[in-house]
Amino acid sequence: MVLNEITTCQHIVRFNGDSFIEQEDDIAVESALTIVLDGEEFATIVCSPSEIQEMVVGFLASEGIIRVFQDIQSIQVDEEQGFAYVDLVTKPSIQKDFHSKRFIGSCCGKGRQFYFYNDMKTAKTIRTKLTVTPEQCHLLMRELQRSSEIFQKTGGVHNAALCTVEGPVITRTDIGRHNALDKLFGCCLIHRIPLKDKIIAFSGRISSEILLKAAKMGVAIILSKSAPTNLALDLAEELGITAIGFIRGGGFNVYTHQDRIQGLNQNI
Amino acid sequence: MVLNEITTCQHIVRFNGDSFIEQEDDIAVESALTIVLDGEEFATIVCSPSEIQEMVVGFLASEGIIRVFQDIQSIQVDEEQGFAYVDLVTKPSIQKDFHSKRFIGSCCGKGRQFYFYNDMKTAKTIRTKLTVTPEQCHLLMRELQRSSEIFQKTGGVHNAALCTVEGPVITRTDIGRHNALDKLFGCCLIHRIPLKDKIIAFSGRISSEILLKAAKMGVAIILSKSAPTNLALDLAEELGITAIGFIRGGGFNVYTHQDRIQGLNQNI
Repeated sequence: MVLNEITTCQHIVRFNGDSFIEQEDDIAVESALTIVLDGEEFATIVCSPSEIQEMVVGFLASEGIIRVFQDIQSIQVDEEQGFAYVDLVTKPSIQKDFHSKRFIGSCCGKGRQFYFYNDMKTAKTIRTKLTVTPEQCHLLMRELQRSSEIFQKTGGVHNAALCTVEGPVITRTDIGRHNALDKLFGCCLIHRIPLKDKIIAFSGRISSEILLKAAKMGVAIILSKSAPTNLALDLAEELGITAIGFIRGGGFNVYTHQDRIQGLNQNI
Repeated sequence: MVLNEITTCQHIVRFNGDSFIEQEDDIAVESALTIVLDGEEFATIVCSPSEIQEMVVGFLASEGIIRVFQDIQSIQVDEEQGFAYVDLVTKPSIQKDFHSKRFIGSCCGKGRQFYFYNDMKTAKTIRTKLTVTPEQCHLLMRELQRSSEIFQKTGGVHNAALCTVEGPVITRTDIGRHNALDKLFGCCLIHRIPLKDKIIAFSGRISSEILLKAAKMGVAIILSKSAPTNLALDLAEELGITAIGFIRGGGFNVYTHQDRIQGLNQNI
């Protein structure tokens, strides 16, 4: 499997409620990619094999290994074997050994929300005056769904879009929720796309890891058609991110930093 | 946050398509749990804080660190801080350092499906004459949905049930797809529940990691309301597992080892 086909056609048997029919079906491709950092195996990710370079760059930034694309001296992707070889310009400011070490803050509870050491170092509070209207929230979620042909074909992937209030700018797809966001992040770092005035529209649930990725990107508003977790909302509160979920059927829930929704404070 | 509440009530603002209303809402709780194995930090998992001991046991078995519950000398869960301290009877047969090392087989492609070294060692081919009818597939999926009150409350969790052909025996819930299966696996190991005659009904997608967990448990049939990935199907083919997806609206897709579906071979 070469890393450039993200769906594949497969022979299946369909039960239609009454009888069995043999047919062809589109299946989402899942590939393993191992990142070798400065000559050492760093992580293996299972992903949809597209935009691999972007995903690697976004992943390394999410993990606190790089801050900007220029921190990478060279990156080489071996699509056939599923390896990405990355050499850094200098040693990372956050030690590699630390990247997945559990961080426990003081007992008073305030530090508990960050559970990894590097998150505490790299996720910064977002300050922007960006606002959205309820209509824009619905528009962006509709556009996200519409743009994903692969989801419509396979039902097996997640989508993330970087948007302005007018519409999606970049959309990325992956079988892994995290990877879809890492691809967006990597694309923005490579092309130096400013993120402060952007919104993320996301097909999946807002867990703490997804919220932290948005914070590291520096995005102030995250929209989802799905549910959040309480830890994600604690982090959103603390990091200044507006989290909006269950965007479907004309309604939605606003969980945090509601001052970025136009018309809300006058209305309640 | 103590590790025993899996939903929490939170104050939100709901937009109902027309105006904003303040209300209380149930949110899925997400907690960090760090497993300390023989005195060393081994992994940090974000999870729903229920059945922690089962999850840890299932996770260690999935990772190839233990084979049976008796391989664990002691297990102690600190719910307040989110730590589980595990001591093993003997050193694991699969070295800890190896547990996430990428495995690359021969170039001919056959070995490629296993991407971690420990998976190659622990996932065995399933041989059982267990069969199901199409009606049983639908029944088990309906029962899975019905049994999950938390999903109905929060929309933010996954469910996995261990079933006989007659109905679910054990159901577990978690914000993480993998954790729900690890909880089932751990429960079976602790209580020595035989698995050869069982079926897994699962709310999430069948990715390679989910399929490998089923194989390690020794379960022959996996049912999902959602889609599989191609890597999961390659593994299912190789490991003798019947994978059935998109169980909804009266129909479903049979992807692999279709001889376990009653009436199928006569019918096409």
